[in-house]
Amino acid sequence: MERLVNPYVSVDCVLLGFDGTQLNVLIVRQKESGNDDNSTNNYKLPGSLIYMDENLDEAAQRVLKQLTGLVQIRMEQFHAFGNVKRLANPSDMIWLERFHHLEHHLERIVTIAYLSLLRIDRKREKLQKEYDAQWIPISEIPQLAFDHNEIVDTAVKTVERITSSNPARIFDLLPRKFTAAQLHAVYQSVTGKSVDFRNFHKKMQSMPYVVQLDEKEQGVNHRAAHYFKFDRKKA
Amino acid sequence: MERLVNPYVSVDCVLLGFDGTQLNVLIVRQKESGNDDNSTNNYKLPGSLIYMDENLDEAAQRVLKQLTGLVQIRMEQFHAFGNVKRLANPSDMIWLERFHHLEHHLERIVTIAYLSLLRIDRKREKLQKEYDAQWIPISEIPQLAFDHNEIVDTAVKTVERITSSNPARIFDLLPRKFTAAQLHAVYQSVTGKSVDFRNFHKKMQSMPYVVQLDEKEQGVNHRAAHYFKFDRKKA
Repeated sequence: MERLVNPYVSVDCVLLGFDGTQLNVLIVRQKESGNDDNSTNNYKLPGSLIYMDENLDEAAQRVLKQLTGLVQIRMEQFHAFGNVKRLANPSDMIWLERFHHLEHHLERIVTIAYLSLLRIDRKREKLQKEYDAQWIPISEIPQLAFDHNEIVDTAVKTVERITSSNPARIFDLLPRKFTAAQLHAVYQSVTGKSVDFRNFHKKMQSMPYVVQLDEKEQGVNHRAAHYFKFDRKKA
Repeated sequence: MERLVNPYVSVDCVLLGFDGTQLNVLIVRQKESGNDDNSTNNYKLPGSLIYMDENLDEAAQRVLKQLTGLVQIRMEQFHAFGNVKRLANPSDMIWLERFHHLEHHLERIVTIAYLSLLRIDRKREKLQKEYDAQWIPISEIPQLAFDHNEIVDTAVKTVERITSSNPARIFDLLPRKFTAAQLHAVYQSVTGKSVDFRNFHKKMQSMPYVVQLDEKEQGVNHRAAHYFKFDRKKA
């Protein structure tokens, strides 16, 4: 008879934000109380094993609050990762067992990954100072714990799929008012496609939900650009 | 300190097929060797706890083969279900413990649900005879075990989303050659929208990937309709 597996289940949160040039992901550190060890493998996504009385969505909200202070972030499940080898790195295993004060050896963890698209705003400094959490550009992501690099890759592909079927989701990444250059940059960044700026300007005119405001950039060295807003009702 | 949960993990497969009128889902029976008990709660999706050496996708393929004989079915993960109360029905619990010969009490199971769109073909009879598995129209689904009714509902909504962003996926549900009436019926069924047949015929002309064949229905009482095929290269 085959051996059943009784793994732990975790949730991991991929928060993606846009810094004006490219997608960034919010990364935290593997920490144990009283340990400032800087091993190579100590970056990870915000995540945790789930507790007995928590539903999956609740666990995702709880861990995000614990590790980053962020609350009421709209997240959606996008994939479960359960490869038999995802705990293969012994240092990840040691950290896990210490962090959760586990008294027995972990065999497997299946993780349910959550995704959110959001604005990178002024909470940036607070995230860094109080939580040691930081936004890192996708192109500069270091080696992460477990299979978290694979999870981020899958998240980025998922965003490409989501925004291609529902372009309105792109505006989750932008500030309330934005320039055409900013929209152009975020569009290229999520679709992975390079689009000429003039052609993109024409494309914008075919988006009824992108509304030009009577307001321009101020205090810039180049010619001040108009601001636009996203009108959800027209999407 | 919060109590960590060490649940089992399962996979469940939602296979959706089209019978000419509406979506159907493939349902199996909760069985134990030597038990022909017909309790009300004995219908379920094909699914199983995962084994130690299996990845999630492998577990989904393995259980589908075991419970229905179907192999090489393209399935994709669509959602993880982990509500704390999904094992609330005692008869489900008893069945599980007997079926898997478990010696201890199950606290929780998180299930990873898979989805497939496929043709209902001549294997229908074999499924019924050899596996006691049957296609049941969505509108006639009985009470299923665990939260399987909720899983089917979520799958149907997912199909609506998938086919609205990628209409070519609708053809996964149709035979290789099909009539306009069949395409109309499947379209209404997956989108949940009622569309006038004449308007739909016009809509078909705007689908370059729907190609009319030099072949008509044979042996029908009404005026024989043309067959069409789906040309994936033009999608």
